[in-house]
Amino acid sequence: MIDELLQDLYEKKKKSISRAISLVESRSELAENILIKISDRIGNAYRIGITGPPGSGKSTITNQLTKLFLRHNLSVGIVAVDPTSPFTGGAVLGDRIRMSDIGLNENVFIRSLATRGSLGGLSKKAVDAADILDAAGYDIIIFETVGVGQSELDIARASDSTLVVLVPESGDSIQAMKAGLMEIADLFVLNKSDRPGANSAVTAIRSILQLKDISDGMWVPEIIQTVAVENKGIEEIFHFVEKHKSYLTSTGELEKNRKVKLAFRIKEIVSDSLVIELWDDERREILSKSLNEIIKGLSSPYIAAANIINNYKMNKTQEL
Amino acid sequence: MIDELLQDLYEKKKKSISRAISLVESRSELAENILIKISDRIGNAYRIGITGPPGSGKSTITNQLTKLFLRHNLSVGIVAVDPTSPFTGGAVLGDRIRMSDIGLNENVFIRSLATRGSLGGLSKKAVDAADILDAAGYDIIIFETVGVGQSELDIARASDSTLVVLVPESGDSIQAMKAGLMEIADLFVLNKSDRPGANSAVTAIRSILQLKDISDGMWVPEIIQTVAVENKGIEEIFHFVEKHKSYLTSTGELEKNRKVKLAFRIKEIVSDSLVIELWDDERREILSKSLNEIIKGLSSPYIAAANIINNYKMNKTQEL
Repeated sequence: MIDELLQDLYEKKKKSISRAISLVESRSELAENILIKISDRIGNAYRIGITGPPGSGKSTITNQLTKLFLRHNLSVGIVAVDPTSPFTGGAVLGDRIRMSDIGLNENVFIRSLATRGSLGGLSKKAVDAADILDAAGYDIIIFETVGVGQSELDIARASDSTLVVLVPESGDSIQAMKAGLMEIADLFVLNKSDRPGANSAVTAIRSILQLKDISDGMWVPEIIQTVAVENKGIEEIFHFVEKHKSYLTSTGELEKNRKVKLAFRIKEIVSDSLVIELWDDERREILSKSLNEIIKGLSSPYIAAANIINNYKMNKTQEL
Repeated sequence: MIDELLQDLYEKKKKSISRAISLVESRSELAENILIKISDRIGNAYRIGITGPPGSGKSTITNQLTKLFLRHNLSVGIVAVDPTSPFTGGAVLGDRIRMSDIGLNENVFIRSLATRGSLGGLSKKAVDAADILDAAGYDIIIFETVGVGQSELDIARASDSTLVVLVPESGDSIQAMKAGLMEIADLFVLNKSDRPGANSAVTAIRSILQLKDISDGMWVPEIIQTVAVENKGIEEIFHFVEKHKSYLTSTGELEKNRKVKLAFRIKEIVSDSLVIELWDDERREILSKSLNEIIKGLSSPYIAAANIINNYKMNKTQEL
C-alpha cells in the first residue's frame, strides 16, 4: 500500500501527497516507514522560512512570492505552521482562503498544520511534511509560521533562508528580537512600508543589526521594504532568495547548515523515541507515587527522576 | 561543605543563597545534592510569575509589588529570567539597577539568570533557584520573564499565579496571545493605562477572554489597569494575589496544580539526564557518520536515530 502511495507521490499527485502528510500528522505507524523510504529523494528543494508577528502580512507575501516562483517555472510547496491555541483556533483559515487562488494551481501544494492541544511536535511534523513535498519534487518549500514562541526558532532550523516579516508598528517585536529573532533572520522584510513609522522601524532594525558580531565572509542580514498587497518589493525578495541561495551554495554553507540542522533533528527524534518508550504504565505509577512523597517533603524531583531512570534501565536489561 | 552552606542558607544569609544558586546555574555536580537535601523545606513559598513584552513595565511592577509585600511583613525572592541573546545582552542590567532600592533590603533577594548561548535549560534553573529561595524561607517568590517565547509558558508552569503585563500599544502581543498567553494568565495587568488606547486594549483582552471556555467554578482571568511608575493599581494587584491564593487553597487547586507542574518538571529532569548520558563520544561518532550518509541519500534521520538508540541500549546492557 505504501509503495503505491509513494508511486503516486513521486508523480506529484496531490491526493497522495495529502494522504502522506496526514499520516505524518496523525503519527501513524506508517509515517516512519514512508519517511525512511523517501530518504533518497530528499535534498533537492530549497527551503524558505517566513516568520513574523500576527497581522504582519506573511500570508500575502507567501502568496505573491509563490506567484513569482511559478512564473519562473518553479513549483512551490507551502507548509503553514500555526501554533494557534485550540480554543481560539481558526485564525489561519482566513489566510488559507486568501491563498486559494494559488492553491488551485497544479504546481502549488498548500498544507496547514495546526496544534491540537500541545505546542510540542508541531515543527517536527512540519519538517516531515516538507520532506514529503521535497520527495514529491517541489522546487521550493515555504514554511510559514506565526512568530509567537519556540516555533520560529524551530522553523529557522529547518530553512535554508529565513525571512522575518515586520510592520512599522512592530515596536514590541523589534525589541523582542534582541532576544532571539535576530540570530535567525537572513532577511528582514518590513511590510506595510507605506505606513507611518516605516523609516524609524528600518533604523531600529539596522541599529540592532549593528550589535551583531559579523565576522569576515559571514552573511549580513538585509532589509527589504514591501507593500505586499500592492505587490511592491516582492521582486526584491525573489532576487534576495536567488542571491542568498547562490551565496550559501558557493561558500559550502548550504551543506554545512543542513548538516547542523539535520543533527539537531536526529537528536530530537532520538529524545522523542526514548521518552515515548520510557513513559509506560509502570513508570507513570512511580511518578504518581513520587508526587505525593515530594509534596509531603519526603522526596525530591531529582530522586524521583533517578528512580524512574533506574527502573527504565533495569527493565531494558531484562528485555534484552 | 554543603551542610555548612545549607546551614547558612536556612538562616537566610544572602551570600550562601547566592552561592547555592550559582552552583545550580553552573550545573555544578554539587547542585543536585543541594536540591535533594533541601527538598523537605520546599513548598511554603507562594510563587508568582510576571511576564509580558519588553518595555511593558514588569520590573517596575515587581519593584512596587515587592515593597507592598514587605510592608505586610512578607519576604520576597525575585528570579529574573532573561532569555536575552548573548550578543545583545545587558537589557536586564538597567532593570536591576532600577530595582536596587529594594535589593538592599534584607528581606529581599534578587537574582538574574541569563542565557549564555542557548535558550534551553533556563527555566529549569529558574525553578531550581526558586526552590533554594523557598528553602531559605522567602514567603513570596516572583519570577520575572520577558515574554518572547517558550520561557513564559515554562514560568507559568512554575508559578501559582501568573500575571501577564501588557501596555496599550501591545496590539501585536494581544493578537499573539490567542496562541498561548491566554491560557496561562490568571491576571492581565494593563500597565501605562494613562496612555491613549488603554480602553480599547481592555476591550480587546476582554473579547479574547470571552472565547475561553470557562466551566463552573473555574478561575476567570481578571484585568487590572495600572500606572506602575505612579504606583497606581499596585494595591489592586496585591489584593488580587491574596484572593487568587485563597481561591486556589480553598478549592484544592493549589496542590493539584503544583502536582501537575511537579510531574512536568520530573519528566524534564528524566529527559535531560537520559539525553546527557546518551550523547557520549561513540554516539556522536555514529551521528556524524550518519549525517554524511543522509546527505548522500543513503540513509534517513529515522534510521540514524534508531541506530543511535540501539547502540545506547546495547552499551547499557553490557554495563549492568
